Amino acid sequence: MIRHIVLFTWTETATAEQKAAVTAELGKLPDLIPQLRAYTVGADAGINQGNHEFAVVADFDDVGDYLTYRDHPAHQKVIADHIKPILATRAAVQLSL
Amino acid sequence: MIRHIVLFTWTETATAEQKAAVTAELGKLPDLIPQLRAYTVGADAGINQGNHEFAVVADFDDVGDYLTYRDHPAHQKVIADHIKPILATRAAVQLSL
Repeated sequence: MIRHIVLFTWTETATAEQKAAVTAELGKLPDLIPQLRAYTVGADAGINQGNHEFAVVADFDDVGDYLTYRDHPAHQKVIADHIKPILATRAAVQLSL
Repeated sequence: MIRHIVLFTWTETATAEQKAAVTAELGKLPDLIPQLRAYTVGADAGINQGNHEFAVVADFDDVGDYLTYRDHPAHQKVIADHIKPILATRAAVQLSL
């Protein structure tokens, strides 16, 4: 299994509406990309200080399925239209489990 | 459910032995902290450039169980003895799912 993990921080000028759109648009991807075995996305719960603001955890059967998701036009469109305009920093890891 | 996610980068002087010890020592925690419902830890798979180097994804029934893990002496000892000595950067999010 491949577990793909990404954490984001947003720009100071990002609006609540823009942040909510990232959650909503990513949430449409499991219906469009069947290679997604499990998909958890959302904003930080506010338990600790100093956290990043948003997380994506996506599970795939293998590297090929992950690459299908990574490069899928529907995913790339969410990145271009909703994530990049408000992106401050990004941290990612793929685990092979 | 609370999903706790942390990504690390290590210092340039961190050795392979030190990095492997983080995986090994964190891997002992599920036997010591029964609140851990699921626990995936490991080094980045090397699929993409520019990634962080290590990830922890830990699932809990609720915030209280997460806090038990966060503040557990066995967990704090791994942080103090194995993570902090080689830590360069840390990014974290807790998702409430």
